[in-house]
Amino acid sequence: MPIVAVIGDGQLARMMQTAAIELGQSLRLLASSKDASAAQVCSDVLLGDYTNLEHVRLAALGADAVTFDHEHVPNEHLDALIAEGINVQPRPEALIFAQDKLEMRKKLQSLGAPVPPFARIDSLEDAQAFWDQVHGEVCLKARRGGYDGHGVWFPDTQEELSTLVQELLEAGTPLMAEEKVALRGELSAMVARTPSGVTQAWPVVESVQRDGVCAEAVAPAPALPVALRQQAEELSVSLANGLGVTGVLAVELFLCQGAQGALELSVNELAMRPHNTGHWTQDGCCTSQFEQHLRAVLDLPLGDTHTTAEYTVMANVLGAPEDPVMPMQQRVIEVMRRYPKAKIHLYGKEHRPGRKIGHVNYCGEDLAHTRAAANAAAYFLVHATWPDHTSEH
Amino acid sequence: MPIVAVIGDGQLARMMQTAAIELGQSLRLLASSKDASAAQVCSDVLLGDYTNLEHVRLAALGADAVTFDHEHVPNEHLDALIAEGINVQPRPEALIFAQDKLEMRKKLQSLGAPVPPFARIDSLEDAQAFWDQVHGEVCLKARRGGYDGHGVWFPDTQEELSTLVQELLEAGTPLMAEEKVALRGELSAMVARTPSGVTQAWPVVESVQRDGVCAEAVAPAPALPVALRQQAEELSVSLANGLGVTGVLAVELFLCQGAQGALELSVNELAMRPHNTGHWTQDGCCTSQFEQHLRAVLDLPLGDTHTTAEYTVMANVLGAPEDPVMPMQQRVIEVMRRYPKAKIHLYGKEHRPGRKIGHVNYCGEDLAHTRAAANAAAYFLVHATWPDHTSEH
Repeated sequence: MPIVAVIGDGQLARMMQTAAIELGQSLRLLASSKDASAAQVCSDVLLGDYTNLEHVRLAALGADAVTFDHEHVPNEHLDALIAEGINVQPRPEALIFAQDKLEMRKKLQSLGAPVPPFARIDSLEDAQAFWDQVHGEVCLKARRGGYDGHGVWFPDTQEELSTLVQELLEAGTPLMAEEKVALRGELSAMVARTPSGVTQAWPVVESVQRDGVCAEAVAPAPALPVALRQQAEELSVSLANGLGVTGVLAVELFLCQGAQGALELSVNELAMRPHNTGHWTQDGCCTSQFEQHLRAVLDLPLGDTHTTAEYTVMANVLGAPEDPVMPMQQRVIEVMRRYPKAKIHLYGKEHRPGRKIGHVNYCGEDLAHTRAAANAAAYFLVHATWPDHTSEH
Repeated sequence: MPIVAVIGDGQLARMMQTAAIELGQSLRLLASSKDASAAQVCSDVLLGDYTNLEHVRLAALGADAVTFDHEHVPNEHLDALIAEGINVQPRPEALIFAQDKLEMRKKLQSLGAPVPPFARIDSLEDAQAFWDQVHGEVCLKARRGGYDGHGVWFPDTQEELSTLVQELLEAGTPLMAEEKVALRGELSAMVARTPSGVTQAWPVVESVQRDGVCAEAVAPAPALPVALRQQAEELSVSLANGLGVTGVLAVELFLCQGAQGALELSVNELAMRPHNTGHWTQDGCCTSQFEQHLRAVLDLPLGDTHTTAEYTVMANVLGAPEDPVMPMQQRVIEVMRRYPKAKIHLYGKEHRPGRKIGHVNYCGEDLAHTRAAANAAAYFLVHATWPDHTSEH
């Protein structure tokens, strides 16, 4: 059976391993430590540094495909591997659009995808010009490395923008800016694509952010007009093709109020790997994103993506400000007792405030109950108390 | 998170590992080789011999629970571990009824469970007396170690019975005999039970044997009269309680025609671990038997067992008489192409004629199509040709 080498050791690699096991495979990992989330559950683990070409090369040796659980491997390393005949998926030519937000915006614009006005920010003058262009509705972004609200700023005044830009440029952070949108919600449109060019989309989900972090995903996105649903799905497929993505592509979308008052889509971010907003597929879909990613990077036929429940809600288990006294295992017991249908997924990670240490999937027919159950279960796992508003059950 | 030590390295342990990973755990294995099915996919593997007390003790060290993927660990070893304070689940007092068919029959009879007439066979005289008692309708069984039709004989004549009994007793094989039943079908009633005594049953499935080996399981059992379904489910629960089983119990049932012509249940075999007829739960049920087994042996609250599809059919991938020239990976591709909904589970095992090297789960609404698809997919994976009768799709 084929060997997939995964560069990265987080929960995405961990959950790829559960899919790999059932397909008769077993992942090879390049991990930073034996205690890392994915390294705990794989037998074929190489300890090393993904910024070190020699380490990445060793992990790739003899693998049928090399893929990633993050976007941070230097592209020159990937180019070197490809020159040596290694099957790297996705390719650096595609990955660049998930690594650099300015390159992504430029490419999306050239493909005709809906994006807000944007500009490269290399100086205070660039920042001031853009402030004027969008009447102060500025969202400033680090071009690289941002995630979960990190690397994104919303300056309220021109002075604030100038101070930020000066500090960041001096610190060597490449910047871009784009116009703030009149946000009405967030969606995620996910698709898998093989090197042969076959694509298979999942139903579009609604993604709920709290404090800049994905807290919840609801599949399929409730109350989404069918035209927007179709547009989002088609967009994910056309972007996968247009960018030459292989494996899973997540297109994070803003649902915003356009100039005419109608709801419109706008691309927020891209990720070229399994994505937090696709975790629901483990329990609510015929083919999970983790299985599909492996199938896609190996150029196998893709699996069916029909849902297996009316609604599936994924709620992230996010480290509370303080780790409760009640041991995690006791919290798991309380959640299992109250919610026998809850699917608890834990990543083998230590508590840290705000850290994603797991998620809960919950399938059901009644949307309100399903959302309440998923969120209450996830909440209890880190707070050891039930949220006040869950009187249901 | 808790550590479950599994004595055994086959596909059952392998599939427990996928459940363990998602629960934030990772199994510890006592395995016979690094290449064994489960050892391929775990990081915490101790190589050793399950008949060696010292090896079993080392695997159990510090584990929150010790469990099994087979019934062959000597019970005196388990008694020794328990005396040392190790949490062994299930307990040897229960396991004995899955290890020794005569003890099982006696216990079932004492619990009032339906079993055919049976007798201990220690001599040719015992065999002749039983032949007369059941008018030659004799099924001879090795008391221990039988599986998949091994250790079961159906002598056609009294002479054949005598020859068999003489040979087997001389070889040191403890024997029992029971009356052949007028078989109309086979069912499997599965349940999980915790050390605290909580039970949760799955829907009863129909199990289809070919050449003495489970070939297929259909969940829920189609066209089963509701009274028999309820009886089978209640029987599994009462046996789990009556025998003091912890973890998963599979009650293999004969559906037979009774003296009055009505359909009746009769217990065939017991297994105290995840079971082949429960593999469908991975893709067709809220809680899989592998997750439930871990929850049960750790005395956690049990998960919901409602089905997530109208029908789920599991078809075993059984080694063909000859391994086809087409590489396995190409066969996987062909099956994925033809059946995007097929859930392929492979065990990392080499080909051997008749060997269980995987299974295919298929969920659907139309029973005939679902059965045909599951069986065609499983057939192709070992024959590299489609069965003649599948003109569908």
